[in-house]
Amino acid sequence: MAKISARNILPGTVKEVKKGATTAHVLIDVNGSVVTASITNEAVDELGLKPGAPVKAIIKSSDVLVAVD
Amino acid sequence: MAKISARNILPGTVKEVKKGATTAHVLIDVNGSVVTASITNEAVDELGLKPGAPVKAIIKSSDVLVAVD
Amino acid sequence: MAKISARNILPGTVKEVKKGATTAHVLIDVNGSVVTASITNEAVDELGLKPGAPVKAIIKSSDVLVAVD
Amino acid sequence: MAKISARNILPGTVKEVKKGATTAHVLIDVNGSVVTASITNEAVDELGLKPGAPVKAIIKSSDVLVAVD
Amino acid sequence: MAKISARNILPGTVKEVKKGATTAHVLIDVNGSVVTASITNEAVDELGLKPGAPVKAIIKSSDVLVAVD
Amino acid sequence: MAKISARNILPGTVKEVKKGATTAHVLIDVNGSVVTASITNEAVDELGLKPGAPVKAIIKSSDVLVAVD
Repeated sequence: MAKISARNILPGTVKEVKKGATTAHVLIDVNGSVVTASITNEAVDELGLKPGAPVKAIIKSSDVLVAVD
Repeated sequence: MAKISARNILPGTVKEVKKGATTAHVLIDVNGSVVTASITNEAVDELGLKPGAPVKAIIKSSDVLVAVD
Repeated sequence: MAKISARNILPGTVKEVKKGATTAHVLIDVNGSVVTASITNEAVDELGLKPGAPVKAIIKSSDVLVAVD
Repeated sequence: MAKISARNILPGTVKEVKKGATTAHVLIDVNGSVVTASITNEAVDELGLKPGAPVKAIIKSSDVLVAVD
Repeated sequence: MAKISARNILPGTVKEVKKGATTAHVLIDVNGSVVTASITNEAVDELGLKPGAPVKAIIKSSDVLVAVD
Repeated sequence: MAKISARNILPGTVKEVKKGATTAHVLIDVNGSVVTASITNEAVDELGLKPGAPVKAIIKSSDVLVAVD
């Protein structure tokens, strides 16, 4: 895939992978902030995700909420 | 709300607000990267979103995809 | 957070918390109806969710489907 | 469809339909609270949604966030 | 439910059900392609999902991303 | 991107693009079925989407609901 419609593509590095029974949580370091992705264990295996791996966190704009203090 | 279950809370500043007929796109500067949120026009008005406003982009971990090159 | 862009904020009370390996299901009593939220175990701990706790179920309008009989 | 996997099925009545260029906002009265659904104009037409129509608001549990004060 | 607002309703057959601690993955054969749904274990039980069962995979259009090579 | 965590990647051909004020609906022919994606106008332009273009519809498994008759 050369291009994807999602407006938010954040490059980062895998910090930690916590596998559950079916669902894994992948913590990604994005410029010093941690972004958590909840994906299938199967995807973790297929993408070979492990600490240190360079990845992109991808988020559709309709999935972003905005809050003000 | 003091705390929210979403694992991803990115502080930033509104860069641009593009209102459509019912849906607005809010561009948020997060550490120099632009995060786009697609929210209702009504929410834009209620939160008083305009360029320069400090906000938080909030994303549930189940809405984050991971890609590798 | 004083205000959030999500259009649906339903106040209720935690009825039950079922923790899994990574993902928890939180059952919330909203006016006598049960609303289920699937969130991370980590969020359950951080928010201190347990039966009887007053909470808000928050849903983005783009995540609501409509059906007719 | 006799049954759907979504854990949250809230019966209500359409209160207002605001059509945009492609996306409509449907306000649904659920036990006195208003739930907003952002759906396609096409779906509004196909379901014949108009004020007073009995409907169900359907929400997947993975799309529900939880907040505490 | 006679009609639902989701624009994508794909008829298929359950191929495999993998239950986790709280979340199950249901693999659905849709015209020879496999579509995976991540739903609650509770929904699997309530719908009686097992290999061979005829089902529909339902996806809201705002949850579909588009990519080009 | 060589690989993405989303479990559902459906190859197809753009059938129609309906642009709204901010949000576009892209109809994709996937093996004779039509899949609708609701994405930003900006993404339509950036990806150069127009009838006949080969694309992939990408859906995260946590966004798939299952229904039975």
